[in-house]
Amino acid sequence: MAKYTIGLDFGTLSCRALLVDIKSGEEVCTYSFDYPHGVMDEVLPDGTKLGVDWALQHPQDYIDSLKNTIPEVQKLSGVAAEEVIGIGVDFTTCTVMPVKDDGTPLCFLPEYKSRPNAYTKLWKHHAAQDKANIINEVALSRGEKWISRYGNKVSSEWAVPKLWQILEEDPDIYDSMDHFAEAGDWVVWQLTGVQTKNSCMAGYKCMWHKTEGYPSKEFFKALDPRLENVVEEKFSCPVSPLGTKAGDLSEYGARLTGLKPGTAVAIAIGDAHASCPGTKIAEPGKLLMIMGTSTCHLIHSEEEHIVPGICGFVEDGVSPGLFCYEAGQACVGDHFAWFVNNCMPESYAIAARNTGMDPHEYLTEKASKFSPGESGIIALDWWNGNRSVLVDAELTGMFLGMTLQTKPEELYRALIEATAFGTRRIVQAYRENGVTITEVFATGGIARKNAMLMQIYADVLNIPIRIGGSKQSGALGSAILGAVAAGSEKGGYDDYYEATRMMGNLRDEVYMPIEDNVKPYNKLYNEYIILHDYFGRGTNDVMKRLRKK
Amino acid sequence: MAKYTIGLDFGTLSCRALLVDIKSGEEVCTYSFDYPHGVMDEVLPDGTKLGVDWALQHPQDYIDSLKNTIPEVQKLSGVAAEEVIGIGVDFTTCTVMPVKDDGTPLCFLPEYKSRPNAYTKLWKHHAAQDKANIINEVALSRGEKWISRYGNKVSSEWAVPKLWQILEEDPDIYDSMDHFAEAGDWVVWQLTGVQTKNSCMAGYKCMWHKTEGYPSKEFFKALDPRLENVVEEKFSCPVSPLGTKAGDLSEYGARLTGLKPGTAVAIAIGDAHASCPGTKIAEPGKLLMIMGTSTCHLIHSEEEHIVPGICGFVEDGVSPGLFCYEAGQACVGDHFAWFVNNCMPESYAIAARNTGMDPHEYLTEKASKFSPGESGIIALDWWNGNRSVLVDAELTGMFLGMTLQTKPEELYRALIEATAFGTRRIVQAYRENGVTITEVFATGGIARKNAMLMQIYADVLNIPIRIGGSKQSGALGSAILGAVAAGSEKGGYDDYYEATRMMGNLRDEVYMPIEDNVKPYNKLYNEYIILHDYFGRGTNDVMKRLRKK
Repeated sequence: MAKYTIGLDFGTLSCRALLVDIKSGEEVCTYSFDYPHGVMDEVLPDGTKLGVDWALQHPQDYIDSLKNTIPEVQKLSGVAAEEVIGIGVDFTTCTVMPVKDDGTPLCFLPEYKSRPNAYTKLWKHHAAQDKANIINEVALSRGEKWISRYGNKVSSEWAVPKLWQILEEDPDIYDSMDHFAEAGDWVVWQLTGVQTKNSCMAGYKCMWHKTEGYPSKEFFKALDPRLENVVEEKFSCPVSPLGTKAGDLSEYGARLTGLKPGTAVAIAIGDAHASCPGTKIAEPGKLLMIMGTSTCHLIHSEEEHIVPGICGFVEDGVSPGLFCYEAGQACVGDHFAWFVNNCMPESYAIAARNTGMDPHEYLTEKASKFSPGESGIIALDWWNGNRSVLVDAELTGMFLGMTLQTKPEELYRALIEATAFGTRRIVQAYRENGVTITEVFATGGIARKNAMLMQIYADVLNIPIRIGGSKQSGALGSAILGAVAAGSEKGGYDDYYEATRMMGNLRDEVYMPIEDNVKPYNKLYNEYIILHDYFGRGTNDVMKRLRKK
Repeated sequence: MAKYTIGLDFGTLSCRALLVDIKSGEEVCTYSFDYPHGVMDEVLPDGTKLGVDWALQHPQDYIDSLKNTIPEVQKLSGVAAEEVIGIGVDFTTCTVMPVKDDGTPLCFLPEYKSRPNAYTKLWKHHAAQDKANIINEVALSRGEKWISRYGNKVSSEWAVPKLWQILEEDPDIYDSMDHFAEAGDWVVWQLTGVQTKNSCMAGYKCMWHKTEGYPSKEFFKALDPRLENVVEEKFSCPVSPLGTKAGDLSEYGARLTGLKPGTAVAIAIGDAHASCPGTKIAEPGKLLMIMGTSTCHLIHSEEEHIVPGICGFVEDGVSPGLFCYEAGQACVGDHFAWFVNNCMPESYAIAARNTGMDPHEYLTEKASKFSPGESGIIALDWWNGNRSVLVDAELTGMFLGMTLQTKPEELYRALIEATAFGTRRIVQAYRENGVTITEVFATGGIARKNAMLMQIYADVLNIPIRIGGSKQSGALGSAILGAVAAGSEKGGYDDYYEATRMMGNLRDEVYMPIEDNVKPYNKLYNEYIILHDYFGRGTNDVMKRLRKK
């Protein structure tokens, strides 16, 4: 009898379930469910208004996702419940919610249903920026060592700023919650009845370290005396390394999903991070770019290094026993979407339709006619700030080199090249600080669809690049974790690395650097770095001055 | 009996005649004639191929223009030939042609009709750049004083580089020509039978100075021994100051035009320069911006000053007895046209059509919703190089400050602002070097149509701006010169200044600087200058390096 696992991928607007054959890694069946409440960024279900930069979710949507997706993939595939030996869960992060000791979300309680701070704060809830600013100031002024693991910067998206916002705005909710749980861990809790906390989200989003734990009581007290015991009071659940089992599917979990009680459920993982196993990435030296509206760069190492400008690094952050480093570019696909929406002339839009191409395909085809450096245009890829080595959200974009002969596709190509230069700068930072990079991999829609873009990346980085084969590398990664949680006894895998090799999906084709392109791109990269440092390191702070209204 | 003069405005593609009432300045009637040969930039009429950067005209088109336009305005207006007392001619410059002693263009001779160098070289014929480069090198290495009058740079568009090209490529044509004549002077010659050379074109385009004459024989010999006597051999016609009469209409001229023999014909003038009298500009301190695809900045002074980066200054260059200074921005309207053609999204193009606006009106309307500095975008207006204080054709354009929220109209407005900053830099150069500027005037389609743009210019310059009232300020200026050539005896004017006051056309409305806008624009101008100097003065020559393929 074949064995299967299910990977659940909880995204921003929907949840996807992917049923995978654990021997072949074949993706048998997938089903997606849109959250009924979507992202709540203006009002609560009862009409209560939300503030600027708020972004909430309703945990009922997660339950409904379980109820809808898992039975549906069983139905569609014809796979019986007993053939499914494990479940893995990946989730956006840091997506956090106040819950009671029994796991009940505070927003489920009638007395709190009109209280915005009782709901799940989605990763892109940005209303705690003031709190993040204070955390950064206090940590740096106190010389807190832990903050250097995070490029000296805590994001407003992380757990502590969001929790502190609750304390400030609605102390009753704060006092009433027993845990401030990642939604990914909460879903696992619903399935198993066992509360766990995964090392990935704890490490990247909650300042946790495998040997040092959380920041000290003194630090939290310096932020706000009421936070002195925040770890015991709100983050008391012990942290489990990735690649382990959270528990068995409970009777309640079995009723929700239609699977058998006792089915293994894995410790949760971040949605980007789940792409590593999904793309067979488990060893040191392999950089994975998860390319979408933004790009996340993950790389494993056997050693701990301080790398300026990275988002963070976590032991057991992805592959058990290794350090996984995360860096990011805040704006990649978003650049190209901005260009199509704001700069693509009517004649091009019409021609694209007439040739049956989407706008990106059409611009890419025209841009591919140029050789590196031919257009004379260079860009700085900072339309959404710089979140890598400069860690500065106030930086803005630049195009330079236009003449009256410049065509739209030249600007489009310059934007693509700029994102490649931005990636090279990250690779350079990793290497300069002791993290070895020998191979590069990419996943996400852009990587799978845009061959010109991937060739430019290979040429700019001067490294061969391979592409993930799955359209849902995150869900596939979760299914792999489900197979490891089940273990060989149940027909799964005991070894995370073996499971990754067997089930991960990587295309055979390789984008090899083209010698004739590498040289001109080296020159252009030098120009990029001169401008990057001139505008980004304080020589000319014009971008910041222009933002001041 | 009312008296009239006719202004003839010879442009790049057509000639316009304007019939003007000399007492009221009323523009009674206008008629335009397209040159049958247009601009020849690929082949001669017989199919002979032309080189790269060539741009020729056929002098027969000028004769046909006279035959078609002047009779037509008489017919359309019902004004009798005897009521027309004078003719003025303005022409693009430097548009030059090899002719025999009797005025016959060499290209009219059967033996030369397949020889490209026998035709009129249009102002934008750019195939003599190598010659201009050598002229500049030799003049600077010899310490020639005259070149400082031209911002230390001779353009490839001027007479001597074009003449030298003929000598190099077709010495037979060179030897055969008796004069290398400006087309404007040649038209006056056809009308009167009298050869003249106007001080405007001689001064701005042929290195002539009222008291110093042309550069020395030694200089020309240093260029090429064959050029030692070029002035006597090819530029022997004496130079006449503007505002004087060239001669009376000849019998031949009368047959061409249908006017009476003896009608006064004025000394020719450059087409941009003719806008000065057409806009009532004759006194020192009044800066006139002739705004089109590029902008020409003319200002009179009683004194001679060396101003870096200007195109040149000439005594009697426009108003008799005054020095007229010319500076220029190589790309103004061309920027906005580039933007509409390459960066205006389909949704905007459709919305513009639906509201019956042209694309510029539509973008302007949207851009006008922003206050100065609000968008955070700044541009460098160098899509066609910088031809003012930096005198560097290899510079290119820049946009800086984009975010994912940036809209097309913000980029469009930044381009408008950048051209205003470019103008302010020119005003600054004039002032720093002793040329007083107290008032600013503008003419051309952009100035008449785009109120937002003119308000931005007034705010950036912090000077009130008035707009020329005529759609054909050049032709009107020529008609004024025709009235001065006729003199009071024939019912015209003896005094150029009086004629300009009576016949020039200036709107009453004034764009006053708005205090609340002046301050933010001072800040933005400072940012512009920092970037202008960083990219334009050698700190970072990235624009030039990017152009090197």
